[in-house]
Amino acid sequence: METTTLTIATGSRPSAVDLTTDAASFVRGKGDGLLNVFVPHATAGVAVFETGAGSDRDLLDHLDSLFPRDGRWSHAHGSPGHGADHVMPAVIAPSISIPVIDGRLQLGTWQSIVLVDSNRDNPKRIVRLSFLSG
Amino acid sequence: METTTLTIATGSRPSAVDLTTDAASFVRGKGDGLLNVFVPHATAGVAVFETGAGSDRDLLDHLDSLFPRDGRWSHAHGSPGHGADHVMPAVIAPSISIPVIDGRLQLGTWQSIVLVDSNRDNPKRIVRLSFLSG
Amino acid sequence: METTTLTIATGSRPSAVDLTTDAASFVRGKGDGLLNVFVPHATAGVAVFETGAGSDRDLLDHLDSLFPRDGRWSHAHGSPGHGADHVMPAVIAPSISIPVIDGRLQLGTWQSIVLVDSNRDNPKRIVRLSFLSG
Repeated sequence: METTTLTIATGSRPSAVDLTTDAASFVRGKGDGLLNVFVPHATAGVAVFETGAGSDRDLLDHLDSLFPRDGRWSHAHGSPGHGADHVMPAVIAPSISIPVIDGRLQLGTWQSIVLVDSNRDNPKRIVRLSFLSG
Repeated sequence: METTTLTIATGSRPSAVDLTTDAASFVRGKGDGLLNVFVPHATAGVAVFETGAGSDRDLLDHLDSLFPRDGRWSHAHGSPGHGADHVMPAVIAPSISIPVIDGRLQLGTWQSIVLVDSNRDNPKRIVRLSFLSG
Repeated sequence: METTTLTIATGSRPSAVDLTTDAASFVRGKGDGLLNVFVPHATAGVAVFETGAGSDRDLLDHLDSLFPRDGRWSHAHGSPGHGADHVMPAVIAPSISIPVIDGRLQLGTWQSIVLVDSNRDNPKRIVRLSFLSG
């Protein structure tokens, strides 16, 4: 398995950061296999969806609807409603695998690999890319 | 890695298409490893759950509740509320891996591999099956 | 691929069971690769998030909000609202993969691997751990 980490600046606002270019570079020349994208943080996830046409904004807004930043959370520290950030990764998991053929990600035309970080309190994130060939 | 694609007719209504038989055929005789099921589309996902006892209908109905087809989405083209289809795959991811032993999927008795397509505007879908042996 | 199963007592209440210690033991000494954690049940999922600071309770409570245990479900048997348990795994999938380096899970400091079982009717669960080296 070949593996590496990226360091991503996510700032102090909820963010959706497109990792596709980094992931494509990582697997280039590596043949066939699975790319696993993993975020070793408890308040972020990885999603594969379309960016750049409003859906990244839609997702971040909708996360506030699915996981309201109010007083319901017993895990209560940091920013108001931060407990929501700790439940979110159960739904947008911190791990996803993408097939690779001949060193190329087999994503659809409109798919991007996206780091989803609703957390306002953690401006820098690590992402691990791992390629298992077969 | 052995890999192939299926072409699935999903029609013009939200649909949950059981892929289990196709997946089981694909891995038969291939030994031990992981099967990855990946949908290269930005408005579909893959889930593993029970079909045929009402839960597929329940899931499609509930997606309308979790991702309302109203005017909230900034990604606005196609059918009314179509922006919801672009956020859904962040929650029902387009990728899932299933362990395989001696050419047999290690699904539970009531589990099926299901293509979940809430999109009314795309009647045909590709699904990629990839087997990584180990 | 090396693979084994665990038998987990989840009792008759919704539960979030930390599997991290078992998973870490399983991969110890196995080198580099991907650990796949798979639950062969139609009413449970696997999540990676923080436990022990209230978020496990928050998640179980919030599942009742995301998947209300009321009369909406056409899949209706067992406990009231049990149809919700059959839709939940489409969102908290029964499969997740974690990178392993030199026999060590590459989890973040606050991440745990958690069996999420909202089902009151099934007190015992199987979890399959599979390690694919590379």
